[in-house]
Amino acid sequence: MTNDSYSLSRPCPSNKVPRWDWQTDVIVVGFGAAGACAAIEAARAGAKVILIDVAAGYGGASALSGGEIYAGGSGGTLQQRTAGFEDKTEDLYNYLLMAGGPNADQAKVRVYADNSLKHFEWLSEQGIKHKNSYMPEKIVEPVTDDCLIWSGSEEAYPFSQAAKPAPRGHAPQYVGMGGGKYMMDTFAQRIAELDVDVQYNTRALALVADETQRVRGLVVRSDGEVRFARARKGVILCAGGFVMNREMVKRHVPLLLRSNAPIGTVDDGSGIRLGMSIGGATINMGEGFATIPWYPPGSLVKGIFVNERGQRFINEDCYHGRVTQHILQQLGDRIFLLQDNSTYAPLLFEELTRVEIAAAGETWEEVETELKLPKGSLVATMETYNHYAAQGDDPLFHKAAKWLKPLNEPPLVALDCRIDHCFYSSFTLGGLDTLPTGEVLTEDREVIPGLYAAGRTACGLPRWGGGYSSGMSLADSTFFGRLAGKRVAQTSDFDG
Amino acid sequence: MTNDSYSLSRPCPSNKVPRWDWQTDVIVVGFGAAGACAAIEAARAGAKVILIDVAAGYGGASALSGGEIYAGGSGGTLQQRTAGFEDKTEDLYNYLLMAGGPNADQAKVRVYADNSLKHFEWLSEQGIKHKNSYMPEKIVEPVTDDCLIWSGSEEAYPFSQAAKPAPRGHAPQYVGMGGGKYMMDTFAQRIAELDVDVQYNTRALALVADETQRVRGLVVRSDGEVRFARARKGVILCAGGFVMNREMVKRHVPLLLRSNAPIGTVDDGSGIRLGMSIGGATINMGEGFATIPWYPPGSLVKGIFVNERGQRFINEDCYHGRVTQHILQQLGDRIFLLQDNSTYAPLLFEELTRVEIAAAGETWEEVETELKLPKGSLVATMETYNHYAAQGDDPLFHKAAKWLKPLNEPPLVALDCRIDHCFYSSFTLGGLDTLPTGEVLTEDREVIPGLYAAGRTACGLPRWGGGYSSGMSLADSTFFGRLAGKRVAQTSDFDG
Repeated sequence: MTNDSYSLSRPCPSNKVPRWDWQTDVIVVGFGAAGACAAIEAARAGAKVILIDVAAGYGGASALSGGEIYAGGSGGTLQQRTAGFEDKTEDLYNYLLMAGGPNADQAKVRVYADNSLKHFEWLSEQGIKHKNSYMPEKIVEPVTDDCLIWSGSEEAYPFSQAAKPAPRGHAPQYVGMGGGKYMMDTFAQRIAELDVDVQYNTRALALVADETQRVRGLVVRSDGEVRFARARKGVILCAGGFVMNREMVKRHVPLLLRSNAPIGTVDDGSGIRLGMSIGGATINMGEGFATIPWYPPGSLVKGIFVNERGQRFINEDCYHGRVTQHILQQLGDRIFLLQDNSTYAPLLFEELTRVEIAAAGETWEEVETELKLPKGSLVATMETYNHYAAQGDDPLFHKAAKWLKPLNEPPLVALDCRIDHCFYSSFTLGGLDTLPTGEVLTEDREVIPGLYAAGRTACGLPRWGGGYSSGMSLADSTFFGRLAGKRVAQTSDFDG
Repeated sequence: MTNDSYSLSRPCPSNKVPRWDWQTDVIVVGFGAAGACAAIEAARAGAKVILIDVAAGYGGASALSGGEIYAGGSGGTLQQRTAGFEDKTEDLYNYLLMAGGPNADQAKVRVYADNSLKHFEWLSEQGIKHKNSYMPEKIVEPVTDDCLIWSGSEEAYPFSQAAKPAPRGHAPQYVGMGGGKYMMDTFAQRIAELDVDVQYNTRALALVADETQRVRGLVVRSDGEVRFARARKGVILCAGGFVMNREMVKRHVPLLLRSNAPIGTVDDGSGIRLGMSIGGATINMGEGFATIPWYPPGSLVKGIFVNERGQRFINEDCYHGRVTQHILQQLGDRIFLLQDNSTYAPLLFEELTRVEIAAAGETWEEVETELKLPKGSLVATMETYNHYAAQGDDPLFHKAAKWLKPLNEPPLVALDCRIDHCFYSSFTLGGLDTLPTGEVLTEDREVIPGLYAAGRTACGLPRWGGGYSSGMSLADSTFFGRLAGKRVAQTSDFDG
């Protein structure tokens, strides 16, 4: 075989491996949050681990995030209890089950809900600090070093009906956005303390599998050379999702093509493709997360969104990502956020989102005319909304009373949230089907021996744009990364 | 290997095959429209063909259909020209491209648009008769033996902007619904005339592949026995989609769980799973077709649909499946079709669809109250709609003028189209990624030697519920089934 003949989508037969350049127990592909936690746990359990990343350093998409962990249950984290929330495990379970959507993985939700608190403590033990503080405001991510926030749709309909609301987003003690970098720095320090062989600038080219379809190792390109790496216990794929691979996005989740700001580093789907090459089933590939961070300030949540027909389409008090999922489902690119004089304030992320004022007026009729909306369309929407809001009611979408007020104090304003112009970020939520312990499954849900996946290479807790909550993906990546690391370390060495 | 150890999701290594019970050039899996056409073309080209089906007879989901073929271009079919439509190839091309959605396959659309007319003639040569007649009415399928109908959204916005409208649905000359059975009977007769070995009650258990991942044959269970079938040239998977496999539907296209009437026979995803077992990429798995056949009579199209917030959401003059896709995307199960005295008529498929009158009144306010819709919501929708309809305009959704009239002649009526109660049929539109000639591709779009797919096992022309038009799936299955049959017959025999 020549160098060029290796393919992500075709395993290299083990009897064609000319030599083992590297030999180890476990190979972890990808040094983001999932890969780091997998490597830590495998090494702690005594396995020899090689951790590779195609980049020149660690971090992946995890380092671009806010570092939030969605956690709770078992009576609540210290931060939750201090803030007065006794978060029951069943409430966390029910929330995550609804948030996972129609295809939620009950087994994963169960094990995470039962162990979330312990996992959060484990993260502390790794050195990740969380301040004991609570921010009750409606925000996307703390810009201070504060910790506990409402990071999902807990208080919003219909989630509020499924589980007793509690704030569960835990941001690390790091001043400013970007706590994900701090989190990855902390993991990297742990990795350095453990006996893990980290190889950067190393690209996975193909799995190595024997004739029984058992994974034996990996072909990589490292320092420009093709190398054959034997994994006696298994390979763990933690190489992120596929949002940066626009061809894959087109083939699997075309709705995300409407988002113009994919969040990722490598995220070229290579981990998923390696899994598929040996019959690993992908699931939920048509789902993605997208968002425009349109609040804070929270007063904006008292406004309403309408499409280019002047119609409302969602309760605006739910999580910004859920609002955005419904934005992307509207026919037409023009989307407006309507405010009055008492609710309007510039967006905190105004520069980032490119949201500007599209029209203003003394009456909604004036705004409607200025926006060139069909005559009467917006006026009717506002009449209905204001009529009920005055009574503290929203019979259309069940927005909670505290966010309801008639929007009638001039000047009235329409903010331009055009899909094809503003910042709509996104990442993918489909991936390899796995057991909670990371084993990659075939479409028949049979285990593929020697192959594991975690993080966005797998399909985990978050699997529905309409239910995503900040911190769900990192909670999933760190927790199930750990489980995969522990599981692979327990397995017997493969012979041969 | 014991009998039970064969798996759809794990190829049997060719060096583990104890004997070849059957030896042939080509094995076709599934005797629906795609499999029939693949077998006919392979046999006509001189290949030895075994055609298997898990059922006791031929037909598959194709035999449940109306037998319509979406065809045109090159100046038009005889039926189109007689009816006064000079259908240009580029109009067919542009229509199919938009109908395929954001992930449309340009190569497949191109080759089909260029060859649609010739393909339609080929179907005639096989013995499928089409009357030279045209039904201009808005219908789902002829109940007479007539042929040409408007079977998509050609005249509706936005499709009307992309291509000059022409009717392109061609139903066979068969009295009543169910022309698909007639079509399959005709194909079966051709198959009987050719030297094709048909094996019913034969289930595919696993692909046979060599160590280079080249497909060599198939393990089947036939008459209760495991048999090893060698395919010197290739295996063509034409085993339908996966709508009857509700676990797969849940994992891949959960929106279709809202549909309570899946259309299929076997359609358990086994063809797709066989392809995946050897690294075949699945694409578009999150897309499906769904419909409630709410017209004819065409006068109903002058009515409007609203959700449980009294909001309109689509131009009602587009294809019933496109209307339904937007129905399924609404929050809430309650959906109403509103008519007035001049437009109302019982649905032709009233018994099938279980659509009943939910409310009636002298004013829309009465209807709104009876339906317990938020006060003012429906009234506002009707005011806007009626105001513009009186001017022959629909600025919200661009419904064509001929379907517009103010709905204001009492009694006014709301038909109950509840998603969780009425008949919503569905099938899947995701499948294996293939070249137009049927070769199954990996995620990197590399060809898997010896493996082909067509029909709903592959992802073909129809790949978007919002663009599906009647006859697209059979046009795709018959045409690309043929191409796969021709292609596999041309290949050299594999050695070994």
